[in-house]
Amino acid sequence: MAKPDRLVFLALGGAGEIGMNMYIYGFGPAGAERFIMVDAGVTFPNMESSPGVDLIMADPAWIQARADRLEAIFITHAHEDHVGALGHLFHRLQAPVYARRFTAAIAQMKMERSGQDTAMVRQAQPWPHVVHAGPFTVGFLPISHSIPECSSLVIDTPAGRVLHTGDFKVDPTPIVGEGFDTEAFRAIGDMGVRALVCDSTNVFTLTPGRSEATLAPAIAELFREAKGMVVATTFASNVARLKTLAEAGRAAGREVVVLGRAMNTMLKTAQTAEVLDKFPPTIDPLDADGVPRDRLLVLATGSQGERRAASAQLAVGKFMGLELRSGDTFLFSSKTIPGNEVSVARILNQLSEKGVRTIEDDGRYHVSGHPNRPDLVVMHDLIRPEIVVPMHGEHRHLAAHAELASELGRPSIVAPNGTMIELGPGKPRAVESIETGRLYLDGAQLIGWMDGVVRDRIRMALRGHVTVSILIDEGGRPLGGAWVECMGLPEAPRLRDGLAGTLEAEIDRDLARMKPADLASDDAVEAAANRTVSRLCNDKIGKKPLCTVMISRLE
Amino acid sequence: MAKPDRLVFLALGGAGEIGMNMYIYGFGPAGAERFIMVDAGVTFPNMESSPGVDLIMADPAWIQARADRLEAIFITHAHEDHVGALGHLFHRLQAPVYARRFTAAIAQMKMERSGQDTAMVRQAQPWPHVVHAGPFTVGFLPISHSIPECSSLVIDTPAGRVLHTGDFKVDPTPIVGEGFDTEAFRAIGDMGVRALVCDSTNVFTLTPGRSEATLAPAIAELFREAKGMVVATTFASNVARLKTLAEAGRAAGREVVVLGRAMNTMLKTAQTAEVLDKFPPTIDPLDADGVPRDRLLVLATGSQGERRAASAQLAVGKFMGLELRSGDTFLFSSKTIPGNEVSVARILNQLSEKGVRTIEDDGRYHVSGHPNRPDLVVMHDLIRPEIVVPMHGEHRHLAAHAELASELGRPSIVAPNGTMIELGPGKPRAVESIETGRLYLDGAQLIGWMDGVVRDRIRMALRGHVTVSILIDEGGRPLGGAWVECMGLPEAPRLRDGLAGTLEAEIDRDLARMKPADLASDDAVEAAANRTVSRLCNDKIGKKPLCTVMISRLE
Repeated sequence: MAKPDRLVFLALGGAGEIGMNMYIYGFGPAGAERFIMVDAGVTFPNMESSPGVDLIMADPAWIQARADRLEAIFITHAHEDHVGALGHLFHRLQAPVYARRFTAAIAQMKMERSGQDTAMVRQAQPWPHVVHAGPFTVGFLPISHSIPECSSLVIDTPAGRVLHTGDFKVDPTPIVGEGFDTEAFRAIGDMGVRALVCDSTNVFTLTPGRSEATLAPAIAELFREAKGMVVATTFASNVARLKTLAEAGRAAGREVVVLGRAMNTMLKTAQTAEVLDKFPPTIDPLDADGVPRDRLLVLATGSQGERRAASAQLAVGKFMGLELRSGDTFLFSSKTIPGNEVSVARILNQLSEKGVRTIEDDGRYHVSGHPNRPDLVVMHDLIRPEIVVPMHGEHRHLAAHAELASELGRPSIVAPNGTMIELGPGKPRAVESIETGRLYLDGAQLIGWMDGVVRDRIRMALRGHVTVSILIDEGGRPLGGAWVECMGLPEAPRLRDGLAGTLEAEIDRDLARMKPADLASDDAVEAAANRTVSRLCNDKIGKKPLCTVMISRLE
Repeated sequence: MAKPDRLVFLALGGAGEIGMNMYIYGFGPAGAERFIMVDAGVTFPNMESSPGVDLIMADPAWIQARADRLEAIFITHAHEDHVGALGHLFHRLQAPVYARRFTAAIAQMKMERSGQDTAMVRQAQPWPHVVHAGPFTVGFLPISHSIPECSSLVIDTPAGRVLHTGDFKVDPTPIVGEGFDTEAFRAIGDMGVRALVCDSTNVFTLTPGRSEATLAPAIAELFREAKGMVVATTFASNVARLKTLAEAGRAAGREVVVLGRAMNTMLKTAQTAEVLDKFPPTIDPLDADGVPRDRLLVLATGSQGERRAASAQLAVGKFMGLELRSGDTFLFSSKTIPGNEVSVARILNQLSEKGVRTIEDDGRYHVSGHPNRPDLVVMHDLIRPEIVVPMHGEHRHLAAHAELASELGRPSIVAPNGTMIELGPGKPRAVESIETGRLYLDGAQLIGWMDGVVRDRIRMALRGHVTVSILIDEGGRPLGGAWVECMGLPEAPRLRDGLAGTLEAEIDRDLARMKPADLASDDAVEAAANRTVSRLCNDKIGKKPLCTVMISRLE
């Protein structure tokens, strides 16, 4: 008997963290489904768990093994956590990429930088236009977010319709891009929706989200009252915020400088894609020299304290000819993403040392791009799905979002990364457990997060690294004494010959005592040296370093 | 002409960070002052800037060089950031240590663990008793905080009186220990105070602080309503909170288990020092097995997500026979200290995966131990000092606190670590700039933060480490080929001989091309190998590793 068709959903990334979104939908008989992917994003490394890594993305191994059944990739919007992995992973996926105009322009940049064929990115028109991809029919339904031109996806299948919200906020006046269209979403709900797959980021925030348009008055007042130069930082991709800031600056009689590559790229791309118009005139940073300080507004990248971005540079010194002084004002028109608190505090303190007045958001200078709990209720009630599937969250966000759905009287299912669920035609349930993982972009290569490379880096950082070089002559006897180099280990001032010298002498003594048969074995020599290094270091300096032993035998 | 006496203040730690408090007061002719130290605390390392380090403390080098003029060390209270460095630094300071009973007991533990003479810690009686120390007369004035028996110091000198607040909150009902005694502080103010040296931690919090006593009702309600086992975590030293939690547990008919060494030590010490009485009876974790789950309250260490503490252990599995299950409740009766957000979120997610209900403070389950802005106003107005010196803060906290003093009509001076200020007899002003720094406890040793050891660890973590061993024969020619070991570097799958093999072959080629004179020079050989490793790694894997070259010459 032929297996029946089923509609499945699988998160490879994004349902277990806020970042590296990568969702799979499949339709067809079990094991022979045709697939689409929604989004291919990155998340960012940190010293704690991924030192030296450049970017982190979901490991697409599962879908890569089924790439011949992958019909298409859909990108909901141009944030890095949704499109940042596209270029790096495309050669493993090789399926047409669909996105609306501005998003497609960013996606093409990602493809180009990784040497992929930009023609694989195809521009889609908004709903009610649709893209056909195997058994799927997918429409891009405009929705408001903190970047222009975000889309929900209306995904039709023979087993019913899915509304995949993408990232969103319920904002009728988002300044740039389409406002939230209540009636459009209600109309989708009226037609019947099997599953609502929905953003969970702000499920713990109990107040309704506020509109981007509410910010202008307070920002304008701040810029008018400020005495010296004003610097404002926000997310580079928040084009609406940049417009609000720039307009407030112009209204306060200030020339506007845009500082930082990411911000300039975003503005240019938004203008080219015609999602941004009437952006106030700006001047080149190098022309700012001739402008009185109290007539200047600088929009700067680096709201998360990124060390190389414009904000961090301005906090410590001159950047592109601009320099902050006592009496100037620095506005964070942003929120600090968890994990970045210390980096942001560093900048706040550096600015404090310069006498710069710093303003952090107190509710007047920033609004979130994600739906708060009351906004989730709005979405659930507009769509009225048969089932809710929370996405875009850590486990606790997904679980709280599922609980909210229950409170609203709708079934829901928590499907973290790797838990494949059947959305229909039967009762929604988990059907398969897939091993998921992460890929690290490390320099020029992608490596697996469990490869051991990063683990060794963390060990070296915590414990230091000792290298022992041992020379063994033609007669099988140690020659010239062991040589020890220590990296990342403190000197031991009480040891007359220093730590390395003491280790060398002790290893020499050990080798002198070894039997010829043991000396003939690289394994035995290595084990002996390892033991000595570990024991002596623990004894003398209280550390157990990593140890590499190199044995050279003369022939 | 003899130099006139002066009263100086110098922060070696604590005025530039929240942590590692170490303050110096001096009185006498410039360059011949007699000194006292207030507090000797630690701060905690992180992977970002201090991987592998165990503890961080202020470098006492400046006062160590003047230790013969150090009359005494005063410890305001027993928090780690005020007493944690005492044992590690005492041998460099060698001055009598004064603290009240409970604090002295903790200080003695610190001394004992570092092999120092516990008799050097002397128990002081509270104000109006005083300790004479050279030109200083110091009284311990009880003040409320989040640990029993905190003291402000009333420091009298021939140049006037200083009130050094220590850490404090304005709490008339702190559950354990003395309540804030408004009249006592007003009386100090009435007598005239030259300088108020004051806690700045919560200067950005605009609402008045709340009393510890306000928490009991909400906690009791939570424990009553909870269905399964309840775990509550807080700071181990917050004995008052432990009492509130335990009493609420007993009132809800629950047996109380105290899990984690730090918490048990604190409770025991508080009872021995007679600052804690009427703590509810507790049971041994191993006896909890026989108690129904809904009759159990577990108090657990690790509110900051510390990996080895009880909370982190319970979040992933069994600990001391106890195991969390779906339907249990986990309360964070604490706040997350900036920098610990990710560690705490890890636990929240692990608990969410287990189906455990997690409760974070929403204002009902935790109060801060530090003065909010309105509480600072209370203190300023009670003491009415001639000058305010903000301490216990990052630069931005000190600056904002100084601004607050100005708003209240009093002069103030921002004196970050290393800025010595004269408090009297003349106009308060900065008089000297001292180089300050940090010491790292790294395994068994103290090392300087600028020694380069930790820098090398960070570099290895970011870039990986390549070691090259080169053998040169009696004739000055390379022998047997270079040997390369890579640690923390990815393999390069496109290289037939792997990364190490490719590096070896290239180094061999370079050496073969070198002139005999260059081969005779270790520097030249090392430089050549370094260049090759750097160039090839950058080219093949996009990384520039650290490189150690070991050259062995046969003689």
